[in-house]
Amino acid sequence: MGKANKVVLAYSGGLDTSVIIPWLKENYGCEVIAVCVDLGQPEDYDAVEKKAIKSGATKAYIVDAKEEFVADYIWPTVKAGAIYEGKYLLGTSFARPLIAKILVDIANKEGADAIAHGATGKGNDQVRFELTIKALSPNTKIIAPWREWELKSREDCMEYATKHDIPVVATKKHPYSMDQNVWHLSHEGGDLEDPANAPKDDVYLVTHTPEQAPDETEYVTVSFKEGVPVAVNGKEGTPLQLLEALNEIGARNGVGVVDIVENRLVGMKSRGVYENPGGSIIMYAHREMEYLCLDRATYHYKELIANKYAELVYDGMWFAPLMSALQGFVDATQQTVTGEVKLKLYKGNIINAGATSPYSLYNQEFVTFEEDEVYNQADAEGFINLFGLPLKINALMKEKAGL
Amino acid sequence: MGKANKVVLAYSGGLDTSVIIPWLKENYGCEVIAVCVDLGQPEDYDAVEKKAIKSGATKAYIVDAKEEFVADYIWPTVKAGAIYEGKYLLGTSFARPLIAKILVDIANKEGADAIAHGATGKGNDQVRFELTIKALSPNTKIIAPWREWELKSREDCMEYATKHDIPVVATKKHPYSMDQNVWHLSHEGGDLEDPANAPKDDVYLVTHTPEQAPDETEYVTVSFKEGVPVAVNGKEGTPLQLLEALNEIGARNGVGVVDIVENRLVGMKSRGVYENPGGSIIMYAHREMEYLCLDRATYHYKELIANKYAELVYDGMWFAPLMSALQGFVDATQQTVTGEVKLKLYKGNIINAGATSPYSLYNQEFVTFEEDEVYNQADAEGFINLFGLPLKINALMKEKAGL
Amino acid sequence: MGKANKVVLAYSGGLDTSVIIPWLKENYGCEVIAVCVDLGQPEDYDAVEKKAIKSGATKAYIVDAKEEFVADYIWPTVKAGAIYEGKYLLGTSFARPLIAKILVDIANKEGADAIAHGATGKGNDQVRFELTIKALSPNTKIIAPWREWELKSREDCMEYATKHDIPVVATKKHPYSMDQNVWHLSHEGGDLEDPANAPKDDVYLVTHTPEQAPDETEYVTVSFKEGVPVAVNGKEGTPLQLLEALNEIGARNGVGVVDIVENRLVGMKSRGVYENPGGSIIMYAHREMEYLCLDRATYHYKELIANKYAELVYDGMWFAPLMSALQGFVDATQQTVTGEVKLKLYKGNIINAGATSPYSLYNQEFVTFEEDEVYNQADAEGFINLFGLPLKINALMKEKAGL
Amino acid sequence: MGKANKVVLAYSGGLDTSVIIPWLKENYGCEVIAVCVDLGQPEDYDAVEKKAIKSGATKAYIVDAKEEFVADYIWPTVKAGAIYEGKYLLGTSFARPLIAKILVDIANKEGADAIAHGATGKGNDQVRFELTIKALSPNTKIIAPWREWELKSREDCMEYATKHDIPVVATKKHPYSMDQNVWHLSHEGGDLEDPANAPKDDVYLVTHTPEQAPDETEYVTVSFKEGVPVAVNGKEGTPLQLLEALNEIGARNGVGVVDIVENRLVGMKSRGVYENPGGSIIMYAHREMEYLCLDRATYHYKELIANKYAELVYDGMWFAPLMSALQGFVDATQQTVTGEVKLKLYKGNIINAGATSPYSLYNQEFVTFEEDEVYNQADAEGFINLFGLPLKINALMKEKAGL
Repeated sequence: MGKANKVVLAYSGGLDTSVIIPWLKENYGCEVIAVCVDLGQPEDYDAVEKKAIKSGATKAYIVDAKEEFVADYIWPTVKAGAIYEGKYLLGTSFARPLIAKILVDIANKEGADAIAHGATGKGNDQVRFELTIKALSPNTKIIAPWREWELKSREDCMEYATKHDIPVVATKKHPYSMDQNVWHLSHEGGDLEDPANAPKDDVYLVTHTPEQAPDETEYVTVSFKEGVPVAVNGKEGTPLQLLEALNEIGARNGVGVVDIVENRLVGMKSRGVYENPGGSIIMYAHREMEYLCLDRATYHYKELIANKYAELVYDGMWFAPLMSALQGFVDATQQTVTGEVKLKLYKGNIINAGATSPYSLYNQEFVTFEEDEVYNQADAEGFINLFGLPLKINALMKEKAGL
Repeated sequence: MGKANKVVLAYSGGLDTSVIIPWLKENYGCEVIAVCVDLGQPEDYDAVEKKAIKSGATKAYIVDAKEEFVADYIWPTVKAGAIYEGKYLLGTSFARPLIAKILVDIANKEGADAIAHGATGKGNDQVRFELTIKALSPNTKIIAPWREWELKSREDCMEYATKHDIPVVATKKHPYSMDQNVWHLSHEGGDLEDPANAPKDDVYLVTHTPEQAPDETEYVTVSFKEGVPVAVNGKEGTPLQLLEALNEIGARNGVGVVDIVENRLVGMKSRGVYENPGGSIIMYAHREMEYLCLDRATYHYKELIANKYAELVYDGMWFAPLMSALQGFVDATQQTVTGEVKLKLYKGNIINAGATSPYSLYNQEFVTFEEDEVYNQADAEGFINLFGLPLKINALMKEKAGL
Repeated sequence: MGKANKVVLAYSGGLDTSVIIPWLKENYGCEVIAVCVDLGQPEDYDAVEKKAIKSGATKAYIVDAKEEFVADYIWPTVKAGAIYEGKYLLGTSFARPLIAKILVDIANKEGADAIAHGATGKGNDQVRFELTIKALSPNTKIIAPWREWELKSREDCMEYATKHDIPVVATKKHPYSMDQNVWHLSHEGGDLEDPANAPKDDVYLVTHTPEQAPDETEYVTVSFKEGVPVAVNGKEGTPLQLLEALNEIGARNGVGVVDIVENRLVGMKSRGVYENPGGSIIMYAHREMEYLCLDRATYHYKELIANKYAELVYDGMWFAPLMSALQGFVDATQQTVTGEVKLKLYKGNIINAGATSPYSLYNQEFVTFEEDEVYNQADAEGFINLFGLPLKINALMKEKAGL
Repeated sequence: MGKANKVVLAYSGGLDTSVIIPWLKENYGCEVIAVCVDLGQPEDYDAVEKKAIKSGATKAYIVDAKEEFVADYIWPTVKAGAIYEGKYLLGTSFARPLIAKILVDIANKEGADAIAHGATGKGNDQVRFELTIKALSPNTKIIAPWREWELKSREDCMEYATKHDIPVVATKKHPYSMDQNVWHLSHEGGDLEDPANAPKDDVYLVTHTPEQAPDETEYVTVSFKEGVPVAVNGKEGTPLQLLEALNEIGARNGVGVVDIVENRLVGMKSRGVYENPGGSIIMYAHREMEYLCLDRATYHYKELIANKYAELVYDGMWFAPLMSALQGFVDATQQTVTGEVKLKLYKGNIINAGATSPYSLYNQEFVTFEEDEVYNQADAEGFINLFGLPLKINALMKEKAGL
């Protein structure tokens, strides 16, 4: 296991990370500083702070990083249009690098020589935490108790907690493992572990199901500037405020639930159900903007970039050099992604209700049947003849060669 | 304009292509053979045949190519998972090569030296028709009257028709330009030409709107074998029968409407509204199968292939050498894409309700919390250390170089 | 043909473009302003200027754009590592957009309403000229005499010249069509038109053949800063000076000849022989720098970007939005591409002779056999187990399913 | 460490793998079967067999897999045109899967429960061996002594050998770590570990240096059928015979040396010098064939596929599902890659000397200046107008929007 003098711990306030505090002290003979990063998960943060100290931490930080999260992690990903495997909106994936960056900052400030996290050895989060630490502070020791200790289940943890005088709160039972922040709420485990099972209605804690949603249509308008939202229904706000407004609207109308069997980085498939009410509206609206504002060549190539971007975010490569390069590509495409998208929300559906942009490349005049100055139909013949020339040459070759 | 002796014409039975018959005879001094390919558009084909002859055609073919269309054009595209610009299901795109192939076959049989079509000079269809002809019969002359003649509007056509004794039927007015086949129904033009306008409810001729759909949930099960549907709700059928069954189910529940500002090949954007009730269910279900049956590396690379495939289909490159190569890739991935997907349809929504496959790569045992034989959590540390090594080396370099 | 008042003409001083002057005046009734852009082709520019006036131009500009060419067109492409179809260094491709940009600038200054160029209807250059004009000055009329006039051969041109009192200089016969600038000299046509023919030794006007090169090895050192050369053999200079120095060294040693059957944008293949003595050294050296300074993920993805970049440059898309986005990617990768590459030149060969960088990611300590602190060999087992897990799961599935 | 009853060992006859035999017996209490696969490395195979037995193996297999290696591993990669990071011809990479497949076959036949190899914990080869075993025999235990034992250097091995009565042969000192087969010879380590050092002339054991090569030019003709060589200088032969013939010709003329700092899969860079005399000729010639026989769209997309293919081969993914899919793509492109390439070899240079194909898509008639039937220059205007339309629309938008 080795040694550490002072360990900064990613602390949630839950049983698992509370147990880590005495375990670290016993096994590494170190001081523990607990850091709880508020990315929008609903918690009583005073209680979290107290519990950290009660569990044995020397100090506890509560860091509100919600605005930074939306502005510097979510918005860039929105600009990229990055969605993992066609469905997953990366809610946990881009949260981890920010948490890890805050841990590194506090470790530097506190003179800590190690960082610990409570992610298990089977998931993606351990990779995301640790890659960020490696990228930002390569000499800091990383401790992942779940890969080291003897505790193998929640029951083991409860027993360990009791033994170490850590309060074990009886919580209302949600039978799924969750991760929540202002962008999403994920559910894994339980009966979801069999992909043959449909999610039950009680999975959802944030959004209405389509059936529960109102029978009336609701319209929402999202305004974009250079690829990111700047107003909702005409009302400007900070990134966080806009996302929260859309979360409320989306949740009410039952939009944004994703159910996917995804490929983890660590080699296995897993099944997750995600609630992204606001995020789904934003991603949808952003694409509508791009339909108007990006030319064909850029749009098509950006589809490819978006897939790679999503893969890197998923894999915890947020601070990798390749990410900066992809962001360089993405940012260059977003300068004119500005305008308004109106959407109709109805019982789980997000439906186009009209989009406009001062930089729209859609030009009604070109499309209409009548003659116009920009488009000369006779050009089409030449275009087709040259665009199709390789096919013709190939056919002539085959004819000649008897193929 | 040149000369032609015998022209095979892609004939729809509508005003435009009827007018082309006398126009060709007058301007090219040729005999005209009308060919109407039935891909599932609802027509009175006896009437179409008669109208062709009445309009001056020497002969009229009615070719039912629906099964071929589904089996040889739609199913391969389903296997590819190809969707153009994230939304468009390519309904018109892959219909054109089949029509053109049939025209070529009949031209060969009839000894015709030219093929004519009624596509305009502003759209993609002219490209799709002509590229196919170039690829399959490079020496055949191609005639595109809309790029040549003086008729510039529907009014011009009606006048020309009347002058040439072609019956002009007063049709119930649908204010949009449509293309229909067994896979889709598209709408363009009219008030849709302004992307700021939401589609009105009367656009839809096939599907219910979500609001019109029943208040009750309907479940549907699609069975796949090697990447293509083989049964619907446990009932086997021909490709066409399966698609038609799903069209009915999907239309009833209001699923499968797509509204997109898309990038035409010929350089401009256009706005289309598409109804794909059955197709949307199939594409959705196929992806659910792939989530289970493809490994991560294959799935991710196939996303890229699917984009290129969609681009080629959209661009009319169906018979290009690159298409065969992409299909070679796709087919190799589909050998184990076999199983069942259950979906819940509700007022426009398609929702997962459980999927199974005998070749599923999802393994519940690996995912669960407990120890297992396949996955050793301790492996994760080594994995992360090497996977993250480039990040660490980069960070160490920056430290050393003072960056 | 249409009308124009004042036409800016891309003028070379040769027969073809001289003939265009009176032809434009006769056919468009316009004033002609001749613009000759010096990109390094060896000319008597005073004579060129006089000849333009003598041929009927109102005014003649000689614009020395060599430094701009190297700094703003060649260097960015070097950073991208863009090579077309694995061989062609894009020497003509990125020259055309710069010439066209200068034509646009002068057209604006002179109040001209049209731009003419002397590229033929079969090549790529017409596309490169015209796309640039469309991108920078969309309302300017474009005139391409070779696609319009009746002159079909060099003989026709000579006759037309004589008739219009344009001096026809008897030039020493080089039997190939050439394009030269400071980056390259290309040869097309003549016996090269049959790819079965090897190029004869008299093709080469700039470089030695390997056989003619000295029997002694010459070493050259190229220093890079942020992806572009900054010194040759330790001597700093302007971009142009560095390129010229390397041209001399490379030509002497017979390096940099490329012979390729390439795919033109306009649908046909053509065969070109290119001399790029300095350019080949730079591209080679730049890659050696990247081997040291880019991490694996970035290097591999950049290979893909480089191919697309090359395609866009070749296709004349220099001023397309997608180019800016690709450049955004590329520039982000080049911040640490700094260091020195020593190369050994010997009778046509470019051979590594050692490279160094202050930002090298190669770390001798990690590679050596002995234990070290950064790399723990035991990590490899975990890495392989997770990296290979999808293969194992696949194999277990096949075993279980009896595949 | 665990247990094993019978272990199949990848045996080379060298010190390292000889030492593994007694080590396995001592530490795993198992029987050892030594398997030496002849892929073209020059060995006294009788001596190898004897040494295996002498070192304690129960049985020793010598498997000549040279023809299989060329036909089933090298030729498919040639068809793909796969080169890793622009230089490395994958000589070791595709050898490992074949060796591992043979080990698996013998393990099955012999009823062995484990496979051992002598690759170290820092390289790629461990991954290639083990991924193949996981893919072909997921339940077989894998033993990698170099990641387990206490021996840390050649000296440790010699001492262990002496103690266990294994003959240690004093070999003529080549100061580099080598891997040789019929495709290549690699050199790593020693003074090559510093990329600032140029390779010394004594590195090369197979090829002449350019300086040592004859002063006379040598021509060689390679004939291809469906993407693979079928004759050299008109003489047909088995794949192995053709490769050996080209090795001899290439080595004589000093071609095919590659010196690269490459990115290992396991996160670090390493420097290798490779001799591929025949392979370089084949890869070069194959590309020349493709220039003639592939159309532009296919060629360009295949460049991307080739990069991915190379990455997978390098990473040991030979038996991954994605490889089959890529091969499906590649094979579909090679059906017309048939013809002859003549090359001129001179002191390290490979120079085109003419290529022909019955399926060539190069058509001299289209390229020439004169009018022809296939290519109408007037088509170019229409082509450019539509191809450039997005640029024009973008420019018009910017003008209108005041950007």
